[in-house]
Parts: sequence; structure tokens; C-alpha cells
Amino acid sequence: MKKPAGASTASLVDGVRAADPRAIGRAISALEDHEPGAEQLVRELFPHTGKAFLLGLTGAPGTGKSSLANRLAAHYRAQGKRVGVIAVDPTSPFTGGALLGDRIRMQQHATDDGIYIRSMATRGVLGGLARATGDAALVLDAAGKDVILIETVGVGQDEVDIVRLADVTVLLLVAGLGDDVQSFKAGVMEIADVFVINKADRGDTDRLEQELKVVLGLSRRADQWEPPVVKTVATEGTGVPELAAAVDAYRAHIEGAGLREQKRIERWQDRLLDLIRERALERVLKASVGKDKLAACARQVARGERDPYGVVEELLKAAGVNG
Amino acid sequence: MKKPAGASTASLVDGVRAADPRAIGRAISALEDHEPGAEQLVRELFPHTGKAFLLGLTGAPGTGKSSLANRLAAHYRAQGKRVGVIAVDPTSPFTGGALLGDRIRMQQHATDDGIYIRSMATRGVLGGLARATGDAALVLDAAGKDVILIETVGVGQDEVDIVRLADVTVLLLVAGLGDDVQSFKAGVMEIADVFVINKADRGDTDRLEQELKVVLGLSRRADQWEPPVVKTVATEGTGVPELAAAVDAYRAHIEGAGLREQKRIERWQDRLLDLIRERALERVLKASVGKDKLAACARQVARGERDPYGVVEELLKAAGVNG
Repeated sequence: MKKPAGASTASLVDGVRAADPRAIGRAISALEDHEPGAEQLVRELFPHTGKAFLLGLTGAPGTGKSSLANRLAAHYRAQGKRVGVIAVDPTSPFTGGALLGDRIRMQQHATDDGIYIRSMATRGVLGGLARATGDAALVLDAAGKDVILIETVGVGQDEVDIVRLADVTVLLLVAGLGDDVQSFKAGVMEIADVFVINKADRGDTDRLEQELKVVLGLSRRADQWEPPVVKTVATEGTGVPELAAAVDAYRAHIEGAGLREQKRIERWQDRLLDLIRERALERVLKASVGKDKLAACARQVARGERDPYGVVEELLKAAGVNG
Repeated sequence: MKKPAGASTASLVDGVRAADPRAIGRAISALEDHEPGAEQLVRELFPHTGKAFLLGLTGAPGTGKSSLANRLAAHYRAQGKRVGVIAVDPTSPFTGGALLGDRIRMQQHATDDGIYIRSMATRGVLGGLARATGDAALVLDAAGKDVILIETVGVGQDEVDIVRLADVTVLLLVAGLGDDVQSFKAGVMEIADVFVINKADRGDTDRLEQELKVVLGLSRRADQWEPPVVKTVATEGTGVPELAAAVDAYRAHIEGAGLREQKRIERWQDRLLDLIRERALERVLKASVGKDKLAACARQVARGERDPYGVVEELLKAAGVNG
């Protein structure tokens, strides 16, 4: 067992609210690890949240997400905004899958009090990566960050879940990666509010833009927004102000239409479902069996001695969760 | 509500056991959609499972997973084995993100009774994609398939969870995709039992093989297995027999060391946890609130009127799930 965080919750809350990087780091870790007192921490931070703008940035490996996140962070910092970055991309330099050059580039932010960068483990996070990312965003929000960039790889349900936390989602594409049109079809398109064609200085960018506009022209969104396509060269910063302007336009659109609250309600509904799942599991395990008994049950199922649904039924009953 | 599947469970079980493709398809859909009677279906199919060999095939988009799955399926068919394919890759031709050529190529299997191909939706599957994939594998197992190929994109927790269902995991790499070494570092390496360098007729294949062997030489596995590296040109079928031989060697290794049962126990433990989560959630929602009340709670949280953990606590209490 880890030491209870309860006793120091008040000072941790104070530290987070003062945007102390160490307090922010400790708070995120406490939530990530489900430390005792984590719940109390969320309860005390929660009233100080709701102001940050969450910007999700997603795209396949190799599209240059991290360079763009880096440039966007610098752009918002230059406007005097406080910026948080949550990098959940295993290929991101933020998370340590780094090329040395990228690491060095990020050092420019390391001494900048207005930016806080947090990389998330991509495996084995209790309660799932989306929950952990949501909690980290909550801490950064309470710490007074104006903009929180959430960077993920745009493949897989897990990443889609993370992106759904965001107020605006930016999808990066690069001409010539080959599977662009395929990923359009796979429904990744629907999650994006703004499209970026990065590395616009090479590849057949015009053709990709054309294809993209055809596909976009065929779809109609419930929020009446027509997702713009912005061209960037992230490594040089080209197109970054235009991207920021497109994001602002979307923000104005959803706020004007009263849709931001609607999105947040949907987001919280998903998160409440996740929380119920995790809490209920914890309690079923505690009440009925514990991990040892579970392993014994798994052994019986693996040997074909018992069927899985029968086992689960028994465990739920023992915990008082009846059908 | 969907019509109860209960009345026809017996005939569905018979159909699955007779490897009737329509019965297999209906059974998988029934489990995917949590239809009434789905639980009974699993209970009746379960005693007929445990014989199939599950082969997970994963890799980044563009590595040629689907071509290789196609070739492997043909290889096993030529040996007289019955083959099931579960494609959960949104970029896979199996799942519809298809290039016409790939679709046509797959037609060769369409009239072959020994192969059954199922593509999985990649979003919005109740209880998660890993659970749905596991259930589909269970149906194919009960239908007497000797080998079940599970094809996923090798990025994201969701895909890692799916791969963990498999008895053997094959990871595809391609020279020159740029982020190979990065993905090694991100821990994707650890999930692979056999490595394939596909498209070995182009790119700097030797260098990639060299890098791979260096990284592999640094790690030591608990099961004492040294993952081999196989070179293939999937589009031409080159290296496919060698890959099948490497898979067989791994299979012999884990069976010889008594590790197959251990892997299956671990897999069932994960699946039991997933099942408990989902069942408990269903019951909490049913007992305490239902979806409407949940939306109202989400609204309160989104407006900052209540904190999320307080809401969840109340919902769990109302369902009798106490801390």
C-alpha cells in the first residue's frame, strides 16, 4: 500500500492551484495510481475546473503531431496563455519515444513556467487511459491552464475515447502515407473538427486536400460545422497561426450555438460510466474474492471446468450485485 | 429490444458446431450486441472450446498485415486446417477499408467452407473490442476452427488487449517506415513472439533486422523464448512457410514448457475482470438510475454543480454496491 495522500490533500490542492509543477505532477500521479485520498483530491479540485479549453491532436504515427503540438504550445504561450500538454502517444518525443533532436527542442519549454508537459503511460493504467487522461486534464484545468493540448495516436478505440474528452479535435494527415483515404472510411473523419495537412512542403498535398474536401462535402454534421482544412509545415512553424485561427473559429461556433455545454455533458456521461465500472469492479473483488480467488476461477475456466459467465454471476452475487 | 435469442439457442449451438457460416455469424452478432440469451449461448458453446490455436497478427498501418493474413490463411487451408479470421483493423481490407484488389483477392476464400472471415466494428462495441473479439474467437473455436487469425493494428491499449487473447503474437515491421525503433521502445516489442519483416524485397531490410536483433539481444523473456525474425514478401507469398514454421516452433516451446495453460489462465483472468466490470455497470444502471438519470447527473457535473466522484458514490449506493 502507498501512504495515504489524505493528510496532505489540502496542501496538494493549494500547490496545484498555485500551478506548482511538483504539486501538479504529484496530483496527477495520485489520480493515475488510485492512491488513497485521490477521490478527495478530485472533489476539492473539481470546483476550480471548467475553464480550460481542451484541444485534442491526433493522427497516425509519422504525421508530425509532436512537432505541431510543440509549435502550438509556443504559439499560445506567445499570446500569454498558460498551456498544459498531455502526451499519450507512444511514438511521441514527449513520452520518451524520442529522437534526440525533438527532446532538445522541447527543452525550450522546460524553463517556462507557463507550460506543463505530462506524458502518460500507455499500458496498464488502472481504469484505462481515457480516465487517466481525463483526470490529468482536470488537474491542469484546476492549475489554471488556459489551453490543454492532448496528443494521441489516431488509431484505436482508446485514442478515440481520449479525443472525445476534447473541446476541439484536430486530425493530422500527410500526403503520401498511403492509407489516408482508408482511414477516412474507417470513421476517423467523424471525430475531427479541424483537418491539418502537415508536411505540406512535400508529397501530393493538393490531391490529398482535394480528396479530403470531396469526402467532407458528402458528410453533414449535427452541429452545422464545416471542418476546415489547414496546411502546415510544423517543423518550420508554417501555418500554425492559421491553425490556431481555425480552432478559435470552431470554438466560437460551438459556444455561439450553445454546443459546448452539450459536448461536456456527453463527455461527463462517458466518464461517469467509466467510473461506475471501475468502482463496481473494485468492490466486487474486495467483497467477494480478491485477486487470489480470481486467479483460481480463471484457472477453472481455462481448464474448461467452469464457464466464464457462471463464474462472473457467482462473484457478483457474493458482492450483493444482483441481476 | 431485440427479440430473445433464448428460444433458438439450442439450434444456434447446433449450427455453430456444424460450422454453418450463417449460424456462426448470428452467434457472434448475438454476443457482440449482448442480446438476451447471449449468456446462455456462451454457456452452451463453452464446453466445445479450447482446441483452437489463436494467432495474433499486429503491426502499424501499411505493414501489409492483411496480405499476410490472407497468405497464412491459404497456407493453413492447404494443410487441411479449418481457419477463422477475425479482422479488427480499421485499415484492413477484411473490415471494409478495402482497396478493390484486396477485396477481389479475398474472394478466393469466399467459396471455401474451411475458412470463416469476420470483421469487427472498431467503435462502440458494448463491453469493449477485446471482449467482443474474445467472444468471436470462442464461437469460431466451438465451430471447430483449428487456427484463428486475429488481425489488429499494433497501436493502442485496445489492440494490445486484443493481442493478449492470442496463443502466439506475430508483429509485422517494414523497413523505412521511420518509426520502427521508436515503437520498439514503446514496449510493443514485449508482446511479440515472432517478428516479421515484411516487404523484404525493398527498403533497408538488413539494417532493420540488425537493429531488431540488437534490441532482442538485450531483453530476456520469462518463458526463455528467443523470438525469431522472419522475412516475407506477403504479396508474393515469399517466406510464409518459414513464418508458419516459426509459429509452430513457438507453439511447441510453450506447450513443452507447460506455458500454454499459464497464458490461458492469465487471459481468462483479464476477461473475467472485463465481464465483472460490464455486468456490474449494467446492474448499477438498472438498479439505480437508468440512462436518463445518468444524463441528468452528467449535466450537473458538466455545470460544476456536483463533483463526479460524489455522483458515482450515490449511484453505487443506490444499487447496493457498498464500499
